[in-house]
Amino acid sequence: MSDATAGEIADRGLAAEGVRRIEWAAREMPVVAQIRERFAAERPLEGLRVSTCAHVTTETANLVLALRDGGAETRLAASNPLSTQDDVAAALVAEYGVPTFAIKGEDHATYFRHLDLAIEHAPGVGPQLTIDDGADLTALLHRERRDLLDGVAGGTEETTTGVIRLRAMADDGALGYPIVAVNEAETKRFFDNRYGTGQSTLDGIIRATNILLAGKTVVVCGYGWCGRGIAMRAQGHGAHVIVTEVQPTRALEAMLDGYRVMPIAEAASEGDIFVTATGDINVIDRPAFDAMRSGAILANSGHFDAEINLEALEAMTEARRELRPFVEAWTLSDGRQLVVLAEGRLINLGAAEGHPASVMDMSFANQALCLEYLAGRHASLEAGVYDVPREIDEEVARLKLAAMGVAIDELTEEQERYLRSWEQGTA
Amino acid sequence: MSDATAGEIADRGLAAEGVRRIEWAAREMPVVAQIRERFAAERPLEGLRVSTCAHVTTETANLVLALRDGGAETRLAASNPLSTQDDVAAALVAEYGVPTFAIKGEDHATYFRHLDLAIEHAPGVGPQLTIDDGADLTALLHRERRDLLDGVAGGTEETTTGVIRLRAMADDGALGYPIVAVNEAETKRFFDNRYGTGQSTLDGIIRATNILLAGKTVVVCGYGWCGRGIAMRAQGHGAHVIVTEVQPTRALEAMLDGYRVMPIAEAASEGDIFVTATGDINVIDRPAFDAMRSGAILANSGHFDAEINLEALEAMTEARRELRPFVEAWTLSDGRQLVVLAEGRLINLGAAEGHPASVMDMSFANQALCLEYLAGRHASLEAGVYDVPREIDEEVARLKLAAMGVAIDELTEEQERYLRSWEQGTA
Amino acid sequence: MSDATAGEIADRGLAAEGVRRIEWAAREMPVVAQIRERFAAERPLEGLRVSTCAHVTTETANLVLALRDGGAETRLAASNPLSTQDDVAAALVAEYGVPTFAIKGEDHATYFRHLDLAIEHAPGVGPQLTIDDGADLTALLHRERRDLLDGVAGGTEETTTGVIRLRAMADDGALGYPIVAVNEAETKRFFDNRYGTGQSTLDGIIRATNILLAGKTVVVCGYGWCGRGIAMRAQGHGAHVIVTEVQPTRALEAMLDGYRVMPIAEAASEGDIFVTATGDINVIDRPAFDAMRSGAILANSGHFDAEINLEALEAMTEARRELRPFVEAWTLSDGRQLVVLAEGRLINLGAAEGHPASVMDMSFANQALCLEYLAGRHASLEAGVYDVPREIDEEVARLKLAAMGVAIDELTEEQERYLRSWEQGTA
Amino acid sequence: MSDATAGEIADRGLAAEGVRRIEWAAREMPVVAQIRERFAAERPLEGLRVSTCAHVTTETANLVLALRDGGAETRLAASNPLSTQDDVAAALVAEYGVPTFAIKGEDHATYFRHLDLAIEHAPGVGPQLTIDDGADLTALLHRERRDLLDGVAGGTEETTTGVIRLRAMADDGALGYPIVAVNEAETKRFFDNRYGTGQSTLDGIIRATNILLAGKTVVVCGYGWCGRGIAMRAQGHGAHVIVTEVQPTRALEAMLDGYRVMPIAEAASEGDIFVTATGDINVIDRPAFDAMRSGAILANSGHFDAEINLEALEAMTEARRELRPFVEAWTLSDGRQLVVLAEGRLINLGAAEGHPASVMDMSFANQALCLEYLAGRHASLEAGVYDVPREIDEEVARLKLAAMGVAIDELTEEQERYLRSWEQGTA
Repeated sequence: MSDATAGEIADRGLAAEGVRRIEWAAREMPVVAQIRERFAAERPLEGLRVSTCAHVTTETANLVLALRDGGAETRLAASNPLSTQDDVAAALVAEYGVPTFAIKGEDHATYFRHLDLAIEHAPGVGPQLTIDDGADLTALLHRERRDLLDGVAGGTEETTTGVIRLRAMADDGALGYPIVAVNEAETKRFFDNRYGTGQSTLDGIIRATNILLAGKTVVVCGYGWCGRGIAMRAQGHGAHVIVTEVQPTRALEAMLDGYRVMPIAEAASEGDIFVTATGDINVIDRPAFDAMRSGAILANSGHFDAEINLEALEAMTEARRELRPFVEAWTLSDGRQLVVLAEGRLINLGAAEGHPASVMDMSFANQALCLEYLAGRHASLEAGVYDVPREIDEEVARLKLAAMGVAIDELTEEQERYLRSWEQGTA
Repeated sequence: MSDATAGEIADRGLAAEGVRRIEWAAREMPVVAQIRERFAAERPLEGLRVSTCAHVTTETANLVLALRDGGAETRLAASNPLSTQDDVAAALVAEYGVPTFAIKGEDHATYFRHLDLAIEHAPGVGPQLTIDDGADLTALLHRERRDLLDGVAGGTEETTTGVIRLRAMADDGALGYPIVAVNEAETKRFFDNRYGTGQSTLDGIIRATNILLAGKTVVVCGYGWCGRGIAMRAQGHGAHVIVTEVQPTRALEAMLDGYRVMPIAEAASEGDIFVTATGDINVIDRPAFDAMRSGAILANSGHFDAEINLEALEAMTEARRELRPFVEAWTLSDGRQLVVLAEGRLINLGAAEGHPASVMDMSFANQALCLEYLAGRHASLEAGVYDVPREIDEEVARLKLAAMGVAIDELTEEQERYLRSWEQGTA
Repeated sequence: MSDATAGEIADRGLAAEGVRRIEWAAREMPVVAQIRERFAAERPLEGLRVSTCAHVTTETANLVLALRDGGAETRLAASNPLSTQDDVAAALVAEYGVPTFAIKGEDHATYFRHLDLAIEHAPGVGPQLTIDDGADLTALLHRERRDLLDGVAGGTEETTTGVIRLRAMADDGALGYPIVAVNEAETKRFFDNRYGTGQSTLDGIIRATNILLAGKTVVVCGYGWCGRGIAMRAQGHGAHVIVTEVQPTRALEAMLDGYRVMPIAEAASEGDIFVTATGDINVIDRPAFDAMRSGAILANSGHFDAEINLEALEAMTEARRELRPFVEAWTLSDGRQLVVLAEGRLINLGAAEGHPASVMDMSFANQALCLEYLAGRHASLEAGVYDVPREIDEEVARLKLAAMGVAIDELTEEQERYLRSWEQGTA
Repeated sequence: MSDATAGEIADRGLAAEGVRRIEWAAREMPVVAQIRERFAAERPLEGLRVSTCAHVTTETANLVLALRDGGAETRLAASNPLSTQDDVAAALVAEYGVPTFAIKGEDHATYFRHLDLAIEHAPGVGPQLTIDDGADLTALLHRERRDLLDGVAGGTEETTTGVIRLRAMADDGALGYPIVAVNEAETKRFFDNRYGTGQSTLDGIIRATNILLAGKTVVVCGYGWCGRGIAMRAQGHGAHVIVTEVQPTRALEAMLDGYRVMPIAEAASEGDIFVTATGDINVIDRPAFDAMRSGAILANSGHFDAEINLEALEAMTEARRELRPFVEAWTLSDGRQLVVLAEGRLINLGAAEGHPASVMDMSFANQALCLEYLAGRHASLEAGVYDVPREIDEEVARLKLAAMGVAIDELTEEQERYLRSWEQGTA
């Protein structure tokens, strides 16, 4: 089904299933739900055009519906060709009237055409606000639709990878409008990246392979928040964890957290399963492939499918064969077999359902509140990459705790005074 | 033994034991050892007067010896009346010639007199550099020896508590010279506060009480880096952990780390052991005491002994009796008994030996390198609280990994280029 | 497709997919593979009729193929109406020629008819050996086909639940032949029940719901080996775990392992997710349902679907609605909603793929070796429930370690002598 | 002080301190306390002579007092020359009137003379019941005081090591009376060995060395209950754990518990700290010493000091020097230094205070109840090694849970009936 107004999706018939799953996710997204309710009453985004590039999942659907109820006109494209949930796309188009351009497994050309369609709300009319996940939409806008740049008041970016790209743009003086790095919110980075990626990456590996992790050696490349989460959950499954890193402080932290740390070339011969989560390219490359045992399993949890150098692996390979969905054995010329999961694309979206709704709840609550913030503030912000305002971060945490039924202490006046004072000390 | 030049310590006869223990600690402090060697060759602190206020432990001794070998004239006083290791103080004075003013268990007046003696290198002559741990020395200098302020080029502060005080001073415009918050170094805060405080706090509790932690409910007040470490190690001992917090983001993190979170008033009736690590006062107060079970154990791991409101407890108490060293039963009027460890002073120094040498290695490497940095840079720095320069942080981590025999990866040129670029994306 | 000789399965067309998945499982089953190779050479089961009742999964297929290659004539029926993997059943029938009677979702009558078909190898001809999983086949044989009992030389039983039933039969003098309790092998119980059930139960819950476990309260009913595994993995996902038990020693162990322990009636109001693993009935019953929060999720990991009293729940329920596959919301008369997973049948087989192959490798290696043992020994064994011979247990572990590339130490002669001696002591 | 009636101890002046510490331990020993109370009322051991060989600690004191209050005439000797707490010995003699023969650090001859004194209640009069910990007293009785054997009605043994020796004696037909292996009680082995040894072994290592365990590699030799506990707690401190084993099933379990497993010769070059807990001799021997890094730390947690082959190490050693109490550096001819803790004697008693009272509570409750059982039953028991009766085990667990304030579920009649039945199954 394709229609520049209504969207382009795989199968409208999946809409009912999509609605059911979107509602299921809503149960685990009480913070977005509360914001959606307020937005419906206050309409802070009234009439604003929003172009959203995100994984088309049940959670994204809940964000988009909050924006819609807040008055925004939203268009949505996928941020990854493989991660679209076709039933969700169908529901957005057929039941909720949100123009959505996303088909699971779409090819390269379609992927970028869909981004174009999400950018252009009407011929020659672009967005006033953007939401991005990996900075593909933002980059496209800056590269090919500079005519629409002036109309953009601001945007947000969801991922580490995207923020790295945007900072590089800003350093080059190439960034055309202010973007809030939602990724840097404590309630995003600490939760979504660590707990969300942690659980869902292992979930993806298990769904794809159904192997027992206890007793296996899992090599985690990268010890940022995502890598920390993956390592923590792999250990929680009884695996031996080895971490590889390039930053000394992180490497040291991994050591003291009880993992072994070594260069990838050395880890290669010890690992049963390898997972990349660095935001960089070719983290696992030829020398590592050379050293791996036959049967080693390779998965990527970073945003782009460039962390495992599959081109280099291809050059060593004689035959490829799918063993299970998302599980492909690559037989090398020397007879060894390496097993690549989800074609090296992000495993938690490829082979599982992405982050659980309850962590996306916080990321997307930040998205919604940051968009509201930009809508009200954009006149005063210059082009650049901005942090999420502290008060938004705290508000998201407060709403979440309340939804979990958790009460916490408050500082007494005396305690606040003490923290402000400096005369007290050893008494 | 007292002598304004040579120091004031408990018992010179303990010096040999002190030397032996200082050397033992040195084995676990390879980073400070490497810096000490370089300092001895380069003498970057030649002739500078340094006033140091720190826990007088084997690790501090190693720091002070590095400064001495770097050319500094150092005077040392305790940063806590209870934490002094008398044999170390003896060794510093008798074997290493470092004027030291510290006696374990010294009273309030002595404590402050000792700070005075550490400040004044000769009549009317103050320090050019200060090292502080809790900001008592810095506060005293600003309050009572303003005559010496002008001569101070810079200083460092070791603790969270101290940094809070100094920031308050800076906000009041009251801070007289630039101070580097060593506490904020990643290689300090991430390691010393978390792994060091974590292990040593539990160690202190176990040495004091010899109770089995498995199956006990441990309430950790505060989920900063220290609290995280304490919770992690308590769980590592098989305890059930409850966290209390005032900050929503931290409370949420504690929840997702697998701990229960609730207000202290509610936790009070569930806990077997309570540990405070907040940097604030009266965190455990009357309402909590009222709710606690008889036999509950109270310990503090924060810098000052103000986190448990012992005055309020005193008012409820009919009798106190020491059960073991550092273990005192307070019998309340209602018949319940609460057990206070180490008089509410910091348990890891009071009942154990403080942080293990290997974490102090990193904190004190930061101290030494920051002092060197200040010595070279002070002319150009205004009064204020400064972060540890990133390159010092990385250097410390690099030296530590090397000492542990751990190699890590380095970014290839291609990878660095990728991180700087923004045009690449989904291909 | 139905044929008393060839089997009765859902869809022959799934055979190719089944073969692929059976081969994938074979990679993780090196012990069974080694045994299969030896069996093919030695034919220890030549001509023996084996009736197998087991979950029809890729792993069972590998066991059955080892028996076939060992010379046995095997017939296979499902041990649970919901757990059959239709592609595996198809592959067994169409590709491997093993008569298999199993259709995922078959009704009660079909289930028992299938057991009958697995028992009767030809009209009036029963098995010489049985393999059972839950004792349904064995009970049926004793209840309805007593005519065939005499011909049975021996059997094995895979599960705790089955062993409980068989012991009850033996105590009643009702057991007709010797049965080896494979479940009691160390290499079964310690691994399959703990690591296999642990991982796969959590996997089933996550696949069904996609919820984040970190921060959730998971109530595990029963702290046998299965319950231990579930609790361990739930904690490994960052959940708070509460255990309920009836046995004091186990309850105490759960406490000291760091979990909270309380009666189910009390746990009911705290839990977000409930999992039963006791082998008993009505473990979660009306009083617990009454106390649960709306939204609570109920799953069963025990063999039979009797652990959660769904009849009692039905009586409280006004409406049921499927939210996702295997996820059904039961709306109670009081407005609360409880969420039942996989209809209370075992979640790891219902919503995921059952135990990972690598643990089944050990269970099924025990099965194969015990069958070989019975084939050679049956004349000498009386009716009763037997332990797995220690040497089989050790052999399985030895083969597994070898397959994992793990070497271990061996006792020196001196050490063996020491262990046999009693004269040595404090010297 | 020495007196064949009243005892032989180091210093009567320590009695007051001993009393205080015995009372502190009593708080953590509610089960023994309850039994003591009942014993005082029922006097089940009236007039029986009991010879006890045990670590002379605060917990043992509480056991001995329960026996005394139960009517027994108890004599006590140390079960290890290094583990005696002199203040406790003093208190027993001076305050409680229990003849005690134990001096911390006593030499070999004194140790055995003390055992003799504990055996002989009066000239030519031996015990009717024995309590042993390592089987030294029992062996001595069988070797040198066969004249007294006939009078012995029964005994108990506390340790794995002792049980191994006694089983060897029984196999040789050399055992003269029935002995209950308290070690085999679930409430002993599962708790004391695992949680008690786990915590106290790490405690001993930390007290001796004050080193940070996070990031260190700890090699645990033996994966019995003690080894499991040590590995679990080492990991709980953030250490990397390597396990060595001789038994395949245990080695496999260690792997799946997330530890690495390898032969000691291989582990030797990776370890920072080595701990033995096998019950066998020369577990760490010359080939391992050869491979160790300079600075490696060696500790033993097994009963006898024979697990580390110190004779072999002595032969490689040029010089020994004490660095801290219980910490001795052995400088080898090749220049490397190995660090031996507590002279290879059991580290948790040597350098710390032994098991926490709350686990000893259960072991010693078993001891008391088994002695009562033997007192009532001995006529009917033949010489041999017996298990603790199941009902004693359950009783101990029940008393302990009650003391912890933990309630558990009870089987309903319906549930009990179900467990006894075998006709129910898949319905």
